[in-house]
Amino acid sequence: MTDISLSRSSLSTGDSAATPSDLAVGVDIGGTKISAGIVTASGKVLRYEERPLLNVLDESSTTTIVDELVLALLQDYPDVSGIGIGCAGLVEWPSGVVRYAANSSYRGYLIRDHVERRTGMRTVIDNDGNVAAWAEYCVGAAKGHPIVVALTVGTGIGGGACLDGQIFRGSSGLGLEIGHVVVDPKGPRCGCGNRGCLESRVSGTALARRAREAATAVGGERLIEIAGTPENITGEMVFAAASQGDELAVALYDEMGFWLGIGIASLVTVFDPTIVVLGGGMMAAGELLLRPTRESLAKHVYARSNRQLPSLCPAKAGSRAGVVGAALLAFDGAHSPK
Amino acid sequence: MTDISLSRSSLSTGDSAATPSDLAVGVDIGGTKISAGIVTASGKVLRYEERPLLNVLDESSTTTIVDELVLALLQDYPDVSGIGIGCAGLVEWPSGVVRYAANSSYRGYLIRDHVERRTGMRTVIDNDGNVAAWAEYCVGAAKGHPIVVALTVGTGIGGGACLDGQIFRGSSGLGLEIGHVVVDPKGPRCGCGNRGCLESRVSGTALARRAREAATAVGGERLIEIAGTPENITGEMVFAAASQGDELAVALYDEMGFWLGIGIASLVTVFDPTIVVLGGGMMAAGELLLRPTRESLAKHVYARSNRQLPSLCPAKAGSRAGVVGAALLAFDGAHSPK
Repeated sequence: MTDISLSRSSLSTGDSAATPSDLAVGVDIGGTKISAGIVTASGKVLRYEERPLLNVLDESSTTTIVDELVLALLQDYPDVSGIGIGCAGLVEWPSGVVRYAANSSYRGYLIRDHVERRTGMRTVIDNDGNVAAWAEYCVGAAKGHPIVVALTVGTGIGGGACLDGQIFRGSSGLGLEIGHVVVDPKGPRCGCGNRGCLESRVSGTALARRAREAATAVGGERLIEIAGTPENITGEMVFAAASQGDELAVALYDEMGFWLGIGIASLVTVFDPTIVVLGGGMMAAGELLLRPTRESLAKHVYARSNRQLPSLCPAKAGSRAGVVGAALLAFDGAHSPK
Repeated sequence: MTDISLSRSSLSTGDSAATPSDLAVGVDIGGTKISAGIVTASGKVLRYEERPLLNVLDESSTTTIVDELVLALLQDYPDVSGIGIGCAGLVEWPSGVVRYAANSSYRGYLIRDHVERRTGMRTVIDNDGNVAAWAEYCVGAAKGHPIVVALTVGTGIGGGACLDGQIFRGSSGLGLEIGHVVVDPKGPRCGCGNRGCLESRVSGTALARRAREAATAVGGERLIEIAGTPENITGEMVFAAASQGDELAVALYDEMGFWLGIGIASLVTVFDPTIVVLGGGMMAAGELLLRPTRESLAKHVYARSNRQLPSLCPAKAGSRAGVVGAALLAFDGAHSPK
């Protein structure tokens, strides 16, 4: 759902001549952090702030952080044209109710209405995978593509699709939960309670779990050396070991790529996209993950020799895709794509 | 892909006052038969003919049968407004080239262009799953639903989706090949060459294969009694045995429903439809298949307790859905939905 890479607050000095109506606030509520920023209509981030969400599971703490971030931004930029929020979980559309998130505690969370009341500004909210896809379509790697599928592979897997220039949400906003497509019915238990969801097989969480399971096997010495004990192994440590050529760590990335390729193959079979954009913290592994993903995609897609495979492109908006996409959605406000 | 139930040629006398422009020819090219008919703008079938396609694998024999059927219909109804063809396989859109079909021999088949030349009439061609979905959306079980997913579970599995009143085809017409979404990567080999496609787990073909595999197990006596030898068991025989309460046959339907429910769950997780329409010969089994499918859907869909499940409805257009949908698409011609 959220990007697991870390990024620091920064202040860009570009686009300083932008008029107020060219600016919007973007907020990204993830499973591990909340970020917010001031974004131009062309997707440039003029200001960016983030707060970690460690051990914070309740709605009111989330609301407090969102308030702090948004009010501080509005103090410096009072005349923005609106506020957009991307939020992990099932976000009902157009009502904006956050019904449920596999990795958070939201149940019927009304954060959009709260922000609208608190700020007096028009506020729109959407699923974080949708806003990330929107960012890629509007200003990122998928600019101008007619059929776009975007995946955010981080703590979990978020997803979105832009079909003929519009975010596709399904009948009530609950569509494109790509991370919970079942790829392995007898597979591991997912955070959502089901078995074998795509994100139970490939995600930062899955990588760390598989590494802990594998650490005591032959070749696991390097991982234990880095982590101290198997229980302490994190996805970042697997990445470090794999970058140094550790065979077990590389094999774990091969396994992740195998499952990611299966998930993407099914999405290609269903959506026939011209491009698949891959973002999120896991993509920092680059070719370690992309190579086995491409191989698995080519193997599992339907009628491989009778179709052109879509480009598999790294996301351009990076860890700020949520903030950028949410802000871009705020500009859209009145004529929100359905 | 195609309906495995049999239906007889017939001539309805309804809608006899329809004007020529209210009529179109619909053709359905499946893996086991070719059917064609005269259809009114409201989806009523005035005339219906079909030919079996047993042991016919080449394009030219298919073309000959299509010619015979269409020319005979046009002799009686010379002033129809167009011809629509639904065809099993990957049908490129809008070019109309039939690139590939898992259960047929077409490779770059130009049947639309041929029919257009032969008849001098505007002809449109689309995937059989798409035209069946279109029939259900326009005049069938899904009439007026904003987000429709339709599956045809027969020899294989065909699929289509109508999103906001338009057939969704993907970027080049190759989308919605639902039968080839991978649900079990280590599962049986599919007709397309991949492993564990949905239709390798649930279809008339899969049912017969699983029954043959299971027939020699405890409880397989009834199936062998019906078929003579395990190798002779067909899907229809499993249906007959299950209808008589044979435990093994019922268990085989439970297994089919388990996998069908997983496939539908992933489609619900992705499309968030208001309705899922189930057609094709396998659906003749009714509750034998529907009960385990509903159970599996409820178990495997994401965030079950936080969403309303879509209606799971039997198709209304029945075994003639392909003919009806193709004809309805012909009416649409000039403003073909994309």
